[in-house]
Amino acid sequence: MSHPHPDLEFPKPLAKGGVRVVPLGGLGEIGRNMTVIEYDGKLLIVDCGVLFPDDHQPGVDLILPDFEYIADRMDDVVAIVLTHGHEDHIGGVPYLLRLAPDIPVVGSQLTLALVEAKLKEHKITPYTLGVSEGMREVFGDFDCEFIAVNHSIPDALAVFIRTPGGNLLHTGDFKMDQLPLDGRITDLRAFARAGEEGVDLFLTDSTNAVVPGFTAPERDISSAIDKVFRHAERRIIAACFSSHVHRVQQVLDAAEKAGRKVALVGRSMVRNMGIAADLGHLHVPDGVLVDVKALDRLPDDKVVLICTGSQGEPMAALARMAGRDHRIDVGEDDTIMLLSSPIPGNEGSVWRVINGLMRLGAHVVHSGGPDRVHVSGHASAGELLYVYNIVKPANVLPVHGEWRHLVANRDLAIATGVRPDHVPLAEDGVVIDLVDGRARVVGAVPCGYVYVDGSSVGEADEDLLKDRRILRDEGFISVVVAVDVTEGKVIAGPEITARGFAEGDEIFSSVRPKIEAALAEALAKGTTDTGQLQQVVRRAVGGWVGGKIRRRPMIIPVVVEA
Amino acid sequence: MSHPHPDLEFPKPLAKGGVRVVPLGGLGEIGRNMTVIEYDGKLLIVDCGVLFPDDHQPGVDLILPDFEYIADRMDDVVAIVLTHGHEDHIGGVPYLLRLAPDIPVVGSQLTLALVEAKLKEHKITPYTLGVSEGMREVFGDFDCEFIAVNHSIPDALAVFIRTPGGNLLHTGDFKMDQLPLDGRITDLRAFARAGEEGVDLFLTDSTNAVVPGFTAPERDISSAIDKVFRHAERRIIAACFSSHVHRVQQVLDAAEKAGRKVALVGRSMVRNMGIAADLGHLHVPDGVLVDVKALDRLPDDKVVLICTGSQGEPMAALARMAGRDHRIDVGEDDTIMLLSSPIPGNEGSVWRVINGLMRLGAHVVHSGGPDRVHVSGHASAGELLYVYNIVKPANVLPVHGEWRHLVANRDLAIATGVRPDHVPLAEDGVVIDLVDGRARVVGAVPCGYVYVDGSSVGEADEDLLKDRRILRDEGFISVVVAVDVTEGKVIAGPEITARGFAEGDEIFSSVRPKIEAALAEALAKGTTDTGQLQQVVRRAVGGWVGGKIRRRPMIIPVVVEA
Repeated sequence: MSHPHPDLEFPKPLAKGGVRVVPLGGLGEIGRNMTVIEYDGKLLIVDCGVLFPDDHQPGVDLILPDFEYIADRMDDVVAIVLTHGHEDHIGGVPYLLRLAPDIPVVGSQLTLALVEAKLKEHKITPYTLGVSEGMREVFGDFDCEFIAVNHSIPDALAVFIRTPGGNLLHTGDFKMDQLPLDGRITDLRAFARAGEEGVDLFLTDSTNAVVPGFTAPERDISSAIDKVFRHAERRIIAACFSSHVHRVQQVLDAAEKAGRKVALVGRSMVRNMGIAADLGHLHVPDGVLVDVKALDRLPDDKVVLICTGSQGEPMAALARMAGRDHRIDVGEDDTIMLLSSPIPGNEGSVWRVINGLMRLGAHVVHSGGPDRVHVSGHASAGELLYVYNIVKPANVLPVHGEWRHLVANRDLAIATGVRPDHVPLAEDGVVIDLVDGRARVVGAVPCGYVYVDGSSVGEADEDLLKDRRILRDEGFISVVVAVDVTEGKVIAGPEITARGFAEGDEIFSSVRPKIEAALAEALAKGTTDTGQLQQVVRRAVGGWVGGKIRRRPMIIPVVVEA
Repeated sequence: MSHPHPDLEFPKPLAKGGVRVVPLGGLGEIGRNMTVIEYDGKLLIVDCGVLFPDDHQPGVDLILPDFEYIADRMDDVVAIVLTHGHEDHIGGVPYLLRLAPDIPVVGSQLTLALVEAKLKEHKITPYTLGVSEGMREVFGDFDCEFIAVNHSIPDALAVFIRTPGGNLLHTGDFKMDQLPLDGRITDLRAFARAGEEGVDLFLTDSTNAVVPGFTAPERDISSAIDKVFRHAERRIIAACFSSHVHRVQQVLDAAEKAGRKVALVGRSMVRNMGIAADLGHLHVPDGVLVDVKALDRLPDDKVVLICTGSQGEPMAALARMAGRDHRIDVGEDDTIMLLSSPIPGNEGSVWRVINGLMRLGAHVVHSGGPDRVHVSGHASAGELLYVYNIVKPANVLPVHGEWRHLVANRDLAIATGVRPDHVPLAEDGVVIDLVDGRARVVGAVPCGYVYVDGSSVGEADEDLLKDRRILRDEGFISVVVAVDVTEGKVIAGPEITARGFAEGDEIFSSVRPKIEAALAEALAKGTTDTGQLQQVVRRAVGGWVGGKIRRRPMIIPVVVEA
């Protein structure tokens, strides 16, 4: 079993005629998907998404792929291909285009509409090229054929990339719903043709490789949704991702059957469904959709709301309803449907919202209960086996997953007959060269987390996050002293300000004489440098606080010369 | 459907001949279980546990039940009965005994041994009374009979409390393993006898009321553990709770069969298993247990380690191994078993540890995979139905659970024929009076979170936690200025110190003139009060930081007179 060594070095130049693959995000995590494919000095980028921070990254807004490896080579980039319109595949595009606004952005109609809406907020007008399944577009030596795949957002594409150095097939995110709502199935015939032509490197979605069997069809949940509608006594509130057009479609259809009106709640929900309807992906039954204000005039049992927040996001509509901080006042016998599964790490927040809604008297239907109100957007192990057997790739690179997902996906590839040493496991930054029909790990490039943090991009670092964790867990003590260095005496202070302590302020009175004594001693010795005096204060406070209240807060000594 | 109203008032005095039940923890959360039972002015306490903080409670060490309601009435407490030795049932005892060290502490042999070890660390010697199943002890008007129940720790008890005002049966935590390792089953015959005598109020464990069917027997997982032992090529590392004696027993037995030696890792694991072995609950096969240092001299395929950290706790042995920060260097083809399920909210940490271990090349077996290496310690819905049908209680109070668990447990009670209006739902602090055979919500008493935070108990409050969250997410800016108020001028500063910002320090140079201008204006107007001058600084900085970098940090202005 191979795994990346921390001691991988920057790779040697790519052998002539070889293809280099550099994942800059999405391998070792679920999010910020981005793959750079290189041939003869030119670069093709597949996807450029964001990762959402967890509680180890306090205060961070977004995490981007690390562009360092390509930052000096933006002129070599021939295009960026977007497989679909989810944030973890398109969210980083505005930041990439800041480096080079003229890179062609390639994607399906819906994907481009979503990325253009996002770029507009960043005041960027991109050069776009709309494509659809079956089309073939050539970018330098990269001859790209687009293949329909089914996912939890419409209009998703896989891309078959022919290069003189070998053929790559990148699935993007996909599953193989055989009865999708829009009839647009994952095109296994195109996968088969690619396989017959020869797939030298197959990049496959690992998200559900740990899930045995097959992902159920989207339409299987309609009976559970209908059941909720039959039993609901008052309002129905459906929460799902604002990009899940087919899920919203199912709620609209159920509402029409039940004679209820639907309002969309939340900016992203309204915007995305508008785009989807304009492009024909969402079919709004006549007269079903109303403005949220119109609901006030309707009886509760004629009302449906569709909103975001099914992941327990604290600022989304649903969490605010659970906390009675939203104009929709959830009450006795309202019915809430959470039409998604918690993303790993979000479980606590989701349960918090569910408990809050139930405490208000609402009935809550969710994917952890007996009714199936959610199916995943990703292929399970059974589907992946089909795909490996249809494509029969020479080499496989599992993508899109935490390490455990990548390992499980590799094991599936091997089970179908792919040679174990032809399935490299890689994390972000690990470089794979495809040379003479064989994919190998050849090194690693710098690939850290790049944080969007307030107005800054890439300035936040691990030291900053450590500071924030200390501030959060241990608090800080600031000590201000004004000294007259010529006289060698303290003329004001020490003024002590502390935050983050449970102990009352009176506890700090006992450190004051210690600071005064330490300063007096230092000044008596002729220390006049404020930096050194600050060290004196820091040591006096640090020793006291560690002993007295067993904490290690941040200590901020400020010595001003006055 | 009833639910507690925020406007519940402090209850009127208990009617003569009635019994009052006041849950001070464990209702609306999993943790800090504590119930106060009152009759004729005297109080019996059942359990006194701790709750572990989540990421909304940064820096907090533990959360206690709120003792305010009983703090002035400690002389009325006749005893504290502990149902079993888990932290969420005994962890608060040291803090309760600080209020009144002479309250008799009643529990089974193992429970008392665990609570005494804990009290020793707090330098408290308790008055204890050891009891066992079948025994009956009278504390004033509370006539307590102890009943064996099966749980994920040995020697657990339910308690049947006869009072002149009615009979209460409290299950504690339990399940109904019909083939437990130690043969000690939940005594349904005793439950039946209590039911025939008459149970006026039945307090039942709600934890698994949302889980359909029956909790599998502990011994069912032995085949999965044996399978791991058969396939393991190198070391085996088993992680579980340090109180799960039977789980450790299974690993010891499997190790003996496989001819491996076992070392226990971690202070709590070593201590608890020592106690369990001394009391005859853990049977260590001859020669199997060795000191962890002895493992260095054994081949890897003869080695087993048992440690804590199966919940992904960052400081526990397993997480440190995953982060290569432990003397046990997990490597290629070691096998790790996580013998527990993630507690809701811990999933993210558990996955982080699993990914870390897999990245080191280890195989990881866990409850989310295909092999059953864990069973719960709590009765599922099917078992609860049996218990309701055997006891046939007049009234039910679901305890031990988040709101969603309490609701599910109530529904089960009603399904067996308990009258819906005889199953009050209550959260911590909600008061239930049992009067004339009927249990009703009659009010609420103060019942907040009591935080153990560094050296302080009960001093940390919501304002403090809000401060910490602001410090974590937004950082702080401290501005120090020395002024000569008689001259009306700034003589030193502004000295700006900021932490928690991604932006470089140079960004703060643009606020300096704004502060100077604001101060000059205030001083020119004759403002000499340092408090007012600090307000001037705060406003100048706040306006700038909100506009310039769109943050709302904590602002600490310090104006010293020099």
